[in-house]
Amino acid sequence: MEKREEAKEVVEEEEQVVNPWEVSAKDGGKIDYDKLIDKFGCQRLDDSLIQRVQRLTNRPAHVFLRRGVFFAHRDFNDILDAYEKGQKFYLYTGRGPSSEALHLGHLIPFMFTKYLQDAFKVPLVIQLTDDEKCMWKNLSVEESQRLARENAKDIIACGFDVSKTFIFSDFDYVGGAFYKNMVKVAKCVTYNNVISAYFTSTGASYVKRLLTYYAMRFVFQVVGIFGFTGEDHIGKVSFPPVQAVPSFPSSFPHLFSGNDNIRCLIPCAIDQDPYFRMTRDVAPRIGYHKPALIESSFFPALQGENGKMSASDPNSAIYVTDSAKEIKNKINRYAFSSGQDSIELHRKYGANLEVDIPFKYLGFFLDDDAELELSREEYGSGRMLTGEVKKRLTEVLTDIVERHRRARALVTDEMVDAFMAVRPLPNMFN
Amino acid sequence: MEKREEAKEVVEEEEQVVNPWEVSAKDGGKIDYDKLIDKFGCQRLDDSLIQRVQRLTNRPAHVFLRRGVFFAHRDFNDILDAYEKGQKFYLYTGRGPSSEALHLGHLIPFMFTKYLQDAFKVPLVIQLTDDEKCMWKNLSVEESQRLARENAKDIIACGFDVSKTFIFSDFDYVGGAFYKNMVKVAKCVTYNNVISAYFTSTGASYVKRLLTYYAMRFVFQVVGIFGFTGEDHIGKVSFPPVQAVPSFPSSFPHLFSGNDNIRCLIPCAIDQDPYFRMTRDVAPRIGYHKPALIESSFFPALQGENGKMSASDPNSAIYVTDSAKEIKNKINRYAFSSGQDSIELHRKYGANLEVDIPFKYLGFFLDDDAELELSREEYGSGRMLTGEVKKRLTEVLTDIVERHRRARALVTDEMVDAFMAVRPLPNMFN
Repeated sequence: MEKREEAKEVVEEEEQVVNPWEVSAKDGGKIDYDKLIDKFGCQRLDDSLIQRVQRLTNRPAHVFLRRGVFFAHRDFNDILDAYEKGQKFYLYTGRGPSSEALHLGHLIPFMFTKYLQDAFKVPLVIQLTDDEKCMWKNLSVEESQRLARENAKDIIACGFDVSKTFIFSDFDYVGGAFYKNMVKVAKCVTYNNVISAYFTSTGASYVKRLLTYYAMRFVFQVVGIFGFTGEDHIGKVSFPPVQAVPSFPSSFPHLFSGNDNIRCLIPCAIDQDPYFRMTRDVAPRIGYHKPALIESSFFPALQGENGKMSASDPNSAIYVTDSAKEIKNKINRYAFSSGQDSIELHRKYGANLEVDIPFKYLGFFLDDDAELELSREEYGSGRMLTGEVKKRLTEVLTDIVERHRRARALVTDEMVDAFMAVRPLPNMFN
Repeated sequence: MEKREEAKEVVEEEEQVVNPWEVSAKDGGKIDYDKLIDKFGCQRLDDSLIQRVQRLTNRPAHVFLRRGVFFAHRDFNDILDAYEKGQKFYLYTGRGPSSEALHLGHLIPFMFTKYLQDAFKVPLVIQLTDDEKCMWKNLSVEESQRLARENAKDIIACGFDVSKTFIFSDFDYVGGAFYKNMVKVAKCVTYNNVISAYFTSTGASYVKRLLTYYAMRFVFQVVGIFGFTGEDHIGKVSFPPVQAVPSFPSSFPHLFSGNDNIRCLIPCAIDQDPYFRMTRDVAPRIGYHKPALIESSFFPALQGENGKMSASDPNSAIYVTDSAKEIKNKINRYAFSSGQDSIELHRKYGANLEVDIPFKYLGFFLDDDAELELSREEYGSGRMLTGEVKKRLTEVLTDIVERHRRARALVTDEMVDAFMAVRPLPNMFN
């Protein structure tokens, strides 16, 4: 294991790493999203596309579009072309239920997806990858399913329309009792086990075994294929297809039977791009449209903008379960501010808005464009103080969290059952 | 690919290879089953165990037991201990539906399983691994499911009791439309794709890519892990758990709900042992009994006893679809006989019963012990001629094939549906 850590560090020195299992910027700085677009080969979501969305949906673009939170896409224009011609599409997003409490970063794709559903009046499938978390986080099947249901309540609280939305747990929807046992078994078999099993049945020479073992170690140490190593179990490699298949309408016969050619649009954070690059490569080979993507940047941690927020440090994020007092404390104590050391210096030099977390957060959640522009000028020039920006941010976030909490309190188990029932959605396009 | 062939040949020179994807004896000779038992670590099915089966079931042991066709086991004595105490068990066997017509070798596990079901009065689950064949043989999902149903008819024709037997297709039972798409996706992604995808998101140096690529090639060329190489798709590694899970009663909630601790006995050919070694390693870690195994040797090809029969050479086997005339021709023309070059020499030296295929086949299918012993003496000493043995074998096999054909003609689609219905089996232990 130690050697592998070294190998990873070498990679980090070379370049930023963004994939579903690791997000780290070069030299601990900021993620370079322009470079990411180049490397991944996706497209920038430019202003003309945003204007087109407003025109087609007859409503202002969501704040996450206007502010560039969702900043990249793949074939989103094809979706809009089809929509303009009266053709339908559906939305697919998901969540890996690894923890009970969600933070604001977790809510971003759902807030945005809710806007897309309302604006385009389209059906939505939400995948809860309880199987993934059972395999990666070493949760029991039961615990990951419990977390999936808890997370479903937070998702439902975002305001999705039950007549257009199907939420499913992989464990329940993919294959019931049988699939649960499959995953349990897979979790017990490592690649090294597989290699040993092969040697037992062929009886290769000692030298050959040793060479193979070290070649395998080398491969896994360097590449850490799709997030796993030789010590990892074989279940993990079966997961990418599970995340891929909701992109294909025939996976949901109760929703899209007879509508097998309908297009799919996936709102997600850009770290999920490797899964969907694979999916898009595969799609035409098995007779489907490539799913379109609309991809967000990462919501920064309170401590600053290098990487994602971390569940292991509760002070790195605002949780939807935080009280007003906790929100105020976290913002005041932990939100990385670019304000100068003294009021005098701040008045003279102003804030560095490129790295200032309170201002960045306002950019995500303050809907009023005029007020944000005013803050940009006033705070950037030093006329507005960090304390004032933090106070305004506290108000904005407290309001969002309070509204979420009230909505979630109204989500009953029966509502979860209703969203998760395997059923047709008769009016999903109205 | 060429290099890999070489690597395989080296392994063959070293030792015999027996696994689900390859069976080959050392230097093209016979499989050494004693060595196999040692290497795999299973136990020989000895005479005292056979006597015990007769005593417990109150009926003569099946010809495949008496003649050592089923010659090895794992924990079969534990099954008998439990049975003696009045505890229940269930049987699990299966078939990979890769071809429409079955040959006699395919029927052997089913004939034996039918005997076990009747003798012990126990339920049986039969897995049709249409997903496996779709992945390995590059069949479409639809074609492999069609073959599964056709094969189910042959299996049902062996006389299984519908009130105690559940036959299932992996594609239908594991997860419906969703799982079918999963397998389709998995079939499109090779390990090499996965490595490339990883490099795209990390940007490793050219030298590192090259080294990794060659290390990977080396690993796959040498070990061909669980039957696949770097050029193979990732779906294949998800299959071993699929073959493992019918060993666990909770995989079948409609059969064994509340009976989660019931034991499982698996009759199979010994080439399946690697799957079930893995399964047995895993079982206690996820709270189940290790499944017991009762394992057969291979039914030899007409041309001689080195390896299995081959679907690509129709003259290597007797098919259940062969006419009486075809059976007679195949036995007379292709069955490898150890008789001497002339009648005179044969009378003098006798037949070599160790390699004589007509006599071996009689050993599998001639139920009358006294007649077989007589043939052994007469043919081995040279008093009986090859032509006479072949004539008797033709009678025996024609009878078996004719009976199978008549039984299969009576199997309707409704009967297949009945066996494959997901349902409880209320009287499965009576």
